Amino acid sequence: MATNVKIFDTTLRDGTQGEGISLSVEDKMKIARKLDSLGVHYIEGGWPGSNNKDIEFFTRVSELQLKNAKVTAFGSTRRKDTLPENDMNLNRILEVGVPVATIFGKSWDFHVFQAIQTTLEENLAMIYDSVRYLKSKGLEVIYDAEHFFDGFKNNRDYALQTIKKAEEAGADWIVLCDTNGGSLPHEITEIVTVVKQTVAAPIGIHAHNDCELGVANSLAAVAAGATQVQGTINGYGERCGNGNLCSIIPNLQLKMNYSCISAEQLQSLASVARYVSEIANMHMPMNQPYVGSAAFAHKGGIHVSAILRNSSTYEHITPELVGNKQRVLVSELAGQSNLVFKAQELGLDFDNDNQQTKQLIEQIKEMEHQGYQFEGADASLELLIRNAYGKLEEAFKVESFKILMFKNENQPVVTEAIVKLNVQGETVYNAAEGNGPVNALDNALRKCLQQHYPALQNIHLSDYKVRVLDEKDTTAAKVRVLIESTDFNNSWSTVGVSDNVIEASWDALIDSIRYALLGKPKVELHVEEQRERLGLVNH
Amino acid sequence: MATNVKIFDTTLRDGTQGEGISLSVEDKMKIARKLDSLGVHYIEGGWPGSNNKDIEFFTRVSELQLKNAKVTAFGSTRRKDTLPENDMNLNRILEVGVPVATIFGKSWDFHVFQAIQTTLEENLAMIYDSVRYLKSKGLEVIYDAEHFFDGFKNNRDYALQTIKKAEEAGADWIVLCDTNGGSLPHEITEIVTVVKQTVAAPIGIHAHNDCELGVANSLAAVAAGATQVQGTINGYGERCGNGNLCSIIPNLQLKMNYSCISAEQLQSLASVARYVSEIANMHMPMNQPYVGSAAFAHKGGIHVSAILRNSSTYEHITPELVGNKQRVLVSELAGQSNLVFKAQELGLDFDNDNQQTKQLIEQIKEMEHQGYQFEGADASLELLIRNAYGKLEEAFKVESFKILMFKNENQPVVTEAIVKLNVQGETVYNAAEGNGPVNALDNALRKCLQQHYPALQNIHLSDYKVRVLDEKDTTAAKVRVLIESTDFNNSWSTVGVSDNVIEASWDALIDSIRYALLGKPKVELHVEEQRERLGLVNH
Repeated sequence: MATNVKIFDTTLRDGTQGEGISLSVEDKMKIARKLDSLGVHYIEGGWPGSNNKDIEFFTRVSELQLKNAKVTAFGSTRRKDTLPENDMNLNRILEVGVPVATIFGKSWDFHVFQAIQTTLEENLAMIYDSVRYLKSKGLEVIYDAEHFFDGFKNNRDYALQTIKKAEEAGADWIVLCDTNGGSLPHEITEIVTVVKQTVAAPIGIHAHNDCELGVANSLAAVAAGATQVQGTINGYGERCGNGNLCSIIPNLQLKMNYSCISAEQLQSLASVARYVSEIANMHMPMNQPYVGSAAFAHKGGIHVSAILRNSSTYEHITPELVGNKQRVLVSELAGQSNLVFKAQELGLDFDNDNQQTKQLIEQIKEMEHQGYQFEGADASLELLIRNAYGKLEEAFKVESFKILMFKNENQPVVTEAIVKLNVQGETVYNAAEGNGPVNALDNALRKCLQQHYPALQNIHLSDYKVRVLDEKDTTAAKVRVLIESTDFNNSWSTVGVSDNVIEASWDALIDSIRYALLGKPKVELHVEEQRERLGLVNH
Repeated sequence: MATNVKIFDTTLRDGTQGEGISLSVEDKMKIARKLDSLGVHYIEGGWPGSNNKDIEFFTRVSELQLKNAKVTAFGSTRRKDTLPENDMNLNRILEVGVPVATIFGKSWDFHVFQAIQTTLEENLAMIYDSVRYLKSKGLEVIYDAEHFFDGFKNNRDYALQTIKKAEEAGADWIVLCDTNGGSLPHEITEIVTVVKQTVAAPIGIHAHNDCELGVANSLAAVAAGATQVQGTINGYGERCGNGNLCSIIPNLQLKMNYSCISAEQLQSLASVARYVSEIANMHMPMNQPYVGSAAFAHKGGIHVSAILRNSSTYEHITPELVGNKQRVLVSELAGQSNLVFKAQELGLDFDNDNQQTKQLIEQIKEMEHQGYQFEGADASLELLIRNAYGKLEEAFKVESFKILMFKNENQPVVTEAIVKLNVQGETVYNAAEGNGPVNALDNALRKCLQQHYPALQNIHLSDYKVRVLDEKDTTAAKVRVLIESTDFNNSWSTVGVSDNVIEASWDALIDSIRYALLGKPKVELHVEEQRERLGLVNH
């Protein structure tokens, strides 16, 4: 039987300490629902003693009727020289009505003196009184021993006394925090082993990633006996982030024979990671372990031909176990085997010897020679392949565009675009402003298409990259533009190459939209709807 | 005495296997120069048997006259059933004239059967013959044991036999590769320990990050006796990347008492990381350990007040040790030492306490907050400093510009720009075509200025980079444009930031030209010359 390890998610609390992350109450609700379906055991929703947005979240979270996760509120031990029942911070945890309290206290003598400026004895009393008070109100209490590893290294006896106090007061969990993220795995192993010999309460680990060891430290603690792991989705969190649950969970479960969530829940990991990154408005690195779009992407020709023989030659797990998939990147470094794989993926009968295939390979070689790169542009490649096999229905044709830009002395630049399309026989003509020529074109293009393809409303561009190919000529040089688009569930990338950056951007943009519309029928509007959309209401 | 660990950088070879990374020969030269100044011991430049771009790099790398690093070329063991002297791949390594060869061979019996489809005996002979051949030509030989850990787990005896063969043939290093990135630190520890008992040759580690354990695995190998670490800057590499040298080096050196590079070189780590990300046109995550801009950034209110009392309360190392810095309040001294240095260089009396200086620092802070970065834009910084001290004479003022672009069906985009300047009292008005809006503006601007500043004829732009700053809004997002210019003797860089890519480009372009014209007087034209230039020849 695999040992159970409880997953404590703090994306909504510690995760929001990360630079650039800010979640509305609505965002938090959406993420909490996802976390629950992923099967985490605890969701730390915020710090009610610290801000009102968090209080609103706790008020509303019951609407969600979570199935798996217990919601917990964060707070500190009572202030020095006060009674717990007079402590606003502890009372807020009670007021928000959660079944679990997570409170942190000081383990490091240096911090007792420097940060809260009190005596070692008073700090022990603060820990004891606070846990006791919350337990007396019937809550499950998780005690977070802040800076535990630094404290242990500095004054081992005192650090151990603090957690013994928490245990004496009835804490259900003692969680050892590497708050500054500076510890190494072998230190974690040694210290957790000592702690396991000292207290009987279940132990947890809360790691940070300042040495790029957040995952390794979490695993080391579990191997030494910890049975709760605190972390965040995608490792969001202050400075370099928290222990990344998207790597910790599969490592524990697929590699170390622990049990955290069900196999089905694990298969939703990649989509949860992507979802949370979208809601948090954070770019998700392609190369993120397990869940990134490049985590099982193969570029080297040697690797690819081996992969085609047997996946496990260059893959450490089956990607589907975490809801991800294998991708083969077509690039100059690779051979024809990559293309064969790609076509098979699309369900096309790709025969190395037939005429279409040969033409397609020639075409791709020629395009790569011009500067195209399809390894980062799966969707453009798919359109090319479909086109070569006659499997591409074009949702629209471009007739023309115009861009006007002007700037006067200290005024900002004004940009306008006019786009004319032929949407399956119908001429559509629209104009829009933008923050630059590509943005203006994007806006005008959407105005042309949205009435016939309402699905476009959920699609947005998530990354835009310009690469100068031939540096000598610079602003006159050939450029490659890569556009990444997303509709929340999927993301896809397209490419354009030209010696005109606007033309390259336009080509990538058109590919992105064409790809998004694959298989989506045109919505025909009634005359009245058309009139209404044009502002010609019939009254 | 600290044990020495050799750093083997494979950014230019394995790093380019990462999705979205593609380096020109020029890029590789720039990165090699930086790696050398960082103090790495080996630079793996590419695979000469695999592509011609890599051969060109090896041909040109001697121009750099590297001081610290030995350049090495990558390749595989000889093909099955051939003689090493007939093996193109091995001979290419010899032809490119490097002092060190790095060749990989199979350790995993499963791969011998599946990937290269030969016998276990022939694979041993391939390893022996290849190492022997390269040694006989006088090269230092690093033997990369591909899939060593997977091989060991599957068939321990055979895996050990392969590296004993390499040792017998004279390999200078045996590097154990976790090619699929699937191993855990405790496995690395156990297996490296066994290897150390089996071979006498020095051992290296080559880790991948598929379990988010690339750094931990590298450290575990060193702790078990490895004295070479292979990795890449920023962890670039196939799938989830290679072991990240930007975390491995400081962990080894600051936390584990090993010695890799000098303390001064370590202080350049953050800037090398940033430089390589710029050249590779890869977004550098803010939260990257040690070197990211948020690695020592403090957001939590409690943390901040503690930090103000004592930095070590929430920082695991002093950021300056790796050339990074704390960010709490908008770092009040951000870049001030650079400013002092820069101003002294310009012969300006830079006094920290005077009003101009304070205003300038405020202005720079505000601009950095908006997304400006002056590290890569010395010329723009110099213009700012000169302006603050009243030492900037503007060669011209911009009155307005207009851009027109249009595209019809299958025609290329036509781009025209009209620029109106005030050149020291004289209105100059000109138009030009271009390969895109920025090129058209550049052309029109030069037409306006060249008659008065003939020196402009020798100046051209040598690099143009666009970086999206705020990824959520993409084509509507704020961008930073970096322009590098050269007049054959010197080169200089300028920056522009705006939510309109044309405006950002224009600002960087104007700075570039202004900088080029510093100290150059306007040439007044005689009436006849003016007429002649305007095509109104007097006959």
